[in-house]
Amino acid sequence: MSEAVVGIDIGGTFTKYGIIDKKGNCLFEHSISTTFCDGAEEFVHEFSTVLQAELNKHKAITLVGIGIGAPNGNYYNGTIEFAPNLKWKGIIPLVDLFKKHFNVPVYLTNDANAAAIGEMIFGGAKGMNDFIEITLGTGLGSGIVSNGKLIYGHDGFAGEIGHTIVRYNGRQCGCGRRGCLETYVSATGIKRSVYKLLADSLEPSELRGVSFNDLSADMITKAAKEGDKIALEAFEYTGSLLGQKLADSVAHTSPEAIFLFGGLAKAENLILEPTRRHLEANLLSIYKNKVKVLLSGLKEVNAAVLGAAALAWKEIG
Amino acid sequence: MSEAVVGIDIGGTFTKYGIIDKKGNCLFEHSISTTFCDGAEEFVHEFSTVLQAELNKHKAITLVGIGIGAPNGNYYNGTIEFAPNLKWKGIIPLVDLFKKHFNVPVYLTNDANAAAIGEMIFGGAKGMNDFIEITLGTGLGSGIVSNGKLIYGHDGFAGEIGHTIVRYNGRQCGCGRRGCLETYVSATGIKRSVYKLLADSLEPSELRGVSFNDLSADMITKAAKEGDKIALEAFEYTGSLLGQKLADSVAHTSPEAIFLFGGLAKAENLILEPTRRHLEANLLSIYKNKVKVLLSGLKEVNAAVLGAAALAWKEIG
Repeated sequence: MSEAVVGIDIGGTFTKYGIIDKKGNCLFEHSISTTFCDGAEEFVHEFSTVLQAELNKHKAITLVGIGIGAPNGNYYNGTIEFAPNLKWKGIIPLVDLFKKHFNVPVYLTNDANAAAIGEMIFGGAKGMNDFIEITLGTGLGSGIVSNGKLIYGHDGFAGEIGHTIVRYNGRQCGCGRRGCLETYVSATGIKRSVYKLLADSLEPSELRGVSFNDLSADMITKAAKEGDKIALEAFEYTGSLLGQKLADSVAHTSPEAIFLFGGLAKAENLILEPTRRHLEANLLSIYKNKVKVLLSGLKEVNAAVLGAAALAWKEIG
Repeated sequence: MSEAVVGIDIGGTFTKYGIIDKKGNCLFEHSISTTFCDGAEEFVHEFSTVLQAELNKHKAITLVGIGIGAPNGNYYNGTIEFAPNLKWKGIIPLVDLFKKHFNVPVYLTNDANAAAIGEMIFGGAKGMNDFIEITLGTGLGSGIVSNGKLIYGHDGFAGEIGHTIVRYNGRQCGCGRRGCLETYVSATGIKRSVYKLLADSLEPSELRGVSFNDLSADMITKAAKEGDKIALEAFEYTGSLLGQKLADSVAHTSPEAIFLFGGLAKAENLILEPTRRHLEANLLSIYKNKVKVLLSGLKEVNAAVLGAAALAWKEIG
């Protein structure tokens, strides 16, 4: 018998899950619709049946824990609290719901924190005590590790670098405020920057033929790789604001490295190079030439599930 | 025999020191000139003789450690590194210098970190695992505690909130950059704000008769308490920028409380009230009505020495 945990990544549309051993090997991975039934309780009930059936097929493993990453997942309370992207409203006692079906420890945190723990246990941050994980998806999430521990803060909600202000009175944010970093640096942010650049300049661009709704970060990356000047400038602008603002984060926790993870990080050097350059240019002198900006060492394909599994492994010890 | 530590606070002009028991009682406190001899080695040699003579008078106590707070003090290396306000240039191996004279553990950190540890052990942060200490002196220093531990970062230099940027292309800072928080929020920062307000408005003010060099934070506090409109507006402006920027810090580590310490904090409600109001107005909704902004619970008179002593007590355990 060998021990394994289940990692679960709950998203607005799909829930991905897998059985992960202590070395980070994925013994099984699958996904189901998050919305196939109405409430969270029914979802967990149905999902647990599916998961138990899968576990029964793996006679050689003993389940020792479950780790879950979910939007607005609160580590302390085991609850999902007012997640804007989920159908489940209010406060959902997710850990308790899972414990009704599985007699093992269950841990929950938000998706960016799970990615940070995944980076620490299975990715590029192995052996690092101080680093920051930046997840570049629809928004900008972050997980901050100091003294070898994830910072949850007094209420479980620490690490919202996407909602620090990079431009006072800047772009409108979904959170109700203005100028948040994620309104500039995220898949949505770079779209907005492309549209701003298309408005301000007369530069020809293949992106002039695409509607705002149809435009994706992947399309901008592809155009930039083909030399489209608007797309290239959008990446430069995105990296400049990310670098500028990460200089503030460095002044808080002085990390050894900052990892970029998620959709926009797939653009690799297009985002990495300007971020590094503008970070260095904006750092207080004592921090210069010390902080690495790196792509996540987690494989994109199952990084979120691996992160959730890493949370469980870290807690079990 | 009862155990005690020596707390030492090294400043540009004076070095304060005291013998502190485990409960934070000060058995003896004194100060000497930091500049009475040229190099750091001679200073530590001479100072150690004075200190040893004092310890010899206290037969009833056993010295178990020494804690030191100093500008640019590096906890990991035990060194003072390129401190702009000290006569000692370059890298000073301060812990090693002290160990030549005392056969006990010696710990070093910067003054703001020492204040944070003092707050945790002897002040208002007893029992808190997540808080931020803001020291408002000539500049703005900070010490960040998460998961019950001070954040030193990978290089020992974490916690420079005074050098996060509150206004891009804003006021010139001694660090060579522009718009750092401490150029607005510190004893020097509020002086600059008073001068800006005196320039922009025609409002009568008793501060119109004082030169920039002569103006002090205490004078501004006194004028504000007497109803001087320029002085009152300077506090409002100072608190507004501090509150705005602390919203970013909350989004990093989600502290239970933020403590204000040092000269400008003596203005009490004049700085506390606008800071609280603007912090609340700028917080991401999940953090609203949760974060306390408080005056330090350390007595001003020997807070820095108490902080340095607390560092030693925390390490000894």
